[in-house]
Amino acid sequence: MFKKILIANRGEIALRIIRTCREMGIKTVAVYSTADSESLHVKFADEAVCIGRPASAESYLNIPNIMAAIEITNADAVHPGYGFLAENAKFAQICNDSKIKFIGPTAEMINKMGDKITAKETMIKAGVPVIPGGEKLLSSLDEAKGLAKEIGYPVILKATAGGGGKGMRIVWDESELEKAYDTAKMEAAASFKNDGLYMEKYIEEPRHIEIQVAGDQYGNFCHMSERDCSIQRRHQKLVEESPSPFITDELRTAMGEAAKKAAAAIGYESVGTIEFLVDKHRNFYFMEMNTRIQVEHCVTEEVINFDLIKEQIKIAAGEKISGRDYVPEMHAIECRINAEDPYNDFRPSPGKITNLHVPGGHGVRVDSHVYAGYTIPPYYDSMIGKLIAVARTRKEAIDTMYRALSEYVIEGIKTTIPFHLQLMQNDDFINGNFNTKFLETFQLK
Amino acid sequence: MFKKILIANRGEIALRIIRTCREMGIKTVAVYSTADSESLHVKFADEAVCIGRPASAESYLNIPNIMAAIEITNADAVHPGYGFLAENAKFAQICNDSKIKFIGPTAEMINKMGDKITAKETMIKAGVPVIPGGEKLLSSLDEAKGLAKEIGYPVILKATAGGGGKGMRIVWDESELEKAYDTAKMEAAASFKNDGLYMEKYIEEPRHIEIQVAGDQYGNFCHMSERDCSIQRRHQKLVEESPSPFITDELRTAMGEAAKKAAAAIGYESVGTIEFLVDKHRNFYFMEMNTRIQVEHCVTEEVINFDLIKEQIKIAAGEKISGRDYVPEMHAIECRINAEDPYNDFRPSPGKITNLHVPGGHGVRVDSHVYAGYTIPPYYDSMIGKLIAVARTRKEAIDTMYRALSEYVIEGIKTTIPFHLQLMQNDDFINGNFNTKFLETFQLK
Repeated sequence: MFKKILIANRGEIALRIIRTCREMGIKTVAVYSTADSESLHVKFADEAVCIGRPASAESYLNIPNIMAAIEITNADAVHPGYGFLAENAKFAQICNDSKIKFIGPTAEMINKMGDKITAKETMIKAGVPVIPGGEKLLSSLDEAKGLAKEIGYPVILKATAGGGGKGMRIVWDESELEKAYDTAKMEAAASFKNDGLYMEKYIEEPRHIEIQVAGDQYGNFCHMSERDCSIQRRHQKLVEESPSPFITDELRTAMGEAAKKAAAAIGYESVGTIEFLVDKHRNFYFMEMNTRIQVEHCVTEEVINFDLIKEQIKIAAGEKISGRDYVPEMHAIECRINAEDPYNDFRPSPGKITNLHVPGGHGVRVDSHVYAGYTIPPYYDSMIGKLIAVARTRKEAIDTMYRALSEYVIEGIKTTIPFHLQLMQNDDFINGNFNTKFLETFQLK
Repeated sequence: MFKKILIANRGEIALRIIRTCREMGIKTVAVYSTADSESLHVKFADEAVCIGRPASAESYLNIPNIMAAIEITNADAVHPGYGFLAENAKFAQICNDSKIKFIGPTAEMINKMGDKITAKETMIKAGVPVIPGGEKLLSSLDEAKGLAKEIGYPVILKATAGGGGKGMRIVWDESELEKAYDTAKMEAAASFKNDGLYMEKYIEEPRHIEIQVAGDQYGNFCHMSERDCSIQRRHQKLVEESPSPFITDELRTAMGEAAKKAAAAIGYESVGTIEFLVDKHRNFYFMEMNTRIQVEHCVTEEVINFDLIKEQIKIAAGEKISGRDYVPEMHAIECRINAEDPYNDFRPSPGKITNLHVPGGHGVRVDSHVYAGYTIPPYYDSMIGKLIAVARTRKEAIDTMYRALSEYVIEGIKTTIPFHLQLMQNDDFINGNFNTKFLETFQLK
């Protein structure tokens, strides 16, 4: 086992990793920018090294400075957390070349999943369902008709130069195709001076549902069931839960098996996540693989009673995984507490926390790096904590979350707590009736 | 279900009850003494009523004032928590006579278990093992010999007027009895001017192991396995855990069945606890029943994933329990965080908390009513929080507890945290090798 791990990150995930290291008897090294000298991860690590100025490029993304910190502290492994260098193949390779264990997959695995086209091809070969169609330009209406027949209606036409819905048309059956093709082409030409179109299967009422997986160095793989992350605002997840209220046991098994195939296809070694889109008919399609620990890993930890960071460290140290799959024993929901003003377009709200009361009690977990008197710097992402509620049923988990949110006191800055309180009282959310478009129409009171 | 519950208590248990009420959609009324006006239970309840001056007799034990608070707030039930009026049969009766539901057993049940001699007789009738022997005076050596043969060696002779070990003799076999009888009698006469002796079975290496039970109004009973509370200082529990490292599945079943018999013997309705002493041969003996929720109920909640306060409220409202027993799925340990100085004979250390960081993350639960800036009043018990660690194994629970203790920051007062940190590193504790006498020889570094 490692003797000393350097954590190449900040905020709650740095603290999260320090906690598990301490439980495992592993020494820790924090790194920090000059903006983070008063951070808890600095206070709680066994050692701390300043790696540069506030801008991420000069500190948390500064590979030479991080390698120097590893060298002077004699750390034998590095945990990248999420974000920053977590999916940076170059950093993984430099660590490997320097005989420092990068706690995550190899550079090659990161590259294979980092490139979308390669990843999609790999998945098709492995027999993992991907979204039919793709970025190949359509040369004629006839080709469009043929492709639509092949992938099945509904389909969506998209402008290759597009964005913002321009040149985009959903087509429900062949009778609509000609008109849609012509208008999309004209719109694209007018909007982007490029009338190139491509076609994809249209995913109806899409849910973002991802499967947590793990693989070891001996070719063993397991899945740890799903997280439903459909509550998103502009592709930023705000709430995650496990199990998904939408998933059947049968679908869980099918998606779990597909996720293991995906991981096996690149010989994946570490914990990771296969993200799928699931349509209203419960068809699922591979989106991408995250070759790192994720923000929302905690909901999985709570429903299977398992420390994913510990597992990740053990795998990196060469331990075997059991290979058995895990199914949820509980229901867990996570709300991301961000220093953002939900009444002002979720604008970041950095500043000093003047008063703090953290919720506690049965079924409540808090992962947060802030304290009363802490000043949130403006340089990094605005997440200041994760509140996780756990109970035997989804209904009870929502009740516990509502209760915990209502006793969470963070004064001095704006937070997303009012948003989450209203979400927990929303009938559609309570009934599990939501997809990735839910927040487009959700109105804050 | 109740619409509004008045909580006739303070501190962490008042907050604990408010939390569950909020999750159940029940309004809450806090009561408080003038010393507690800044307490969290006052801030978090829907309403709060001042019931008198700091001394408990003038506030939390002042039945007329509490009944008046119930009346003016129109509460339909009262939760007594633990301590104060929780096992006060008179209060339970007054509530009943006033058509206010006392969330707990009836006055009659409290009385039956409150009187030690009645309780022991009831248990003998019900077939629950009690400590053989008892307070009947021995009239002669021959009678002592006969009784010792009946209850089996080892036995202990105790002076009826005694205390502090004087006139007390452990007797391992009959050859030692005559000498022990004579010297104990002489010592008792010399020490207390009363040479009366009685005899009990001597419990070797006793463990305090208690069984959580529940009974409803329809004669259904269940047990929720054990808590090991052997880590005590002068009969004050400091650490509790479930499951007990000492208990086998067979013994758990036997003790669970005995506990259900004990509860059934008085037709018990509510959650409650049967306390047993268990000797090194794994014989167990009834000590007493606590007809209330206990401080240490949280460890049971965590290992069976179950809200005991919710269950208690549901039973009081007339709901049925399932009747199935619960066995631990996890391992949980609770450390009582007291405002006491472990380096100064655990002397209370009231005062202002100037700085506070509460541990969080996977496997950590905190139940506490204090916050940064809160002043602990000197009038009540010194417990300011309960830290609970949960994991799949006892080893991991100890690791998590150690980690959580090491990041718990409470400045401005002395606490028991240094004691717990050392206990979690003690080999005998780690190996489960302890009994109720453990702390008599434990030395703080």
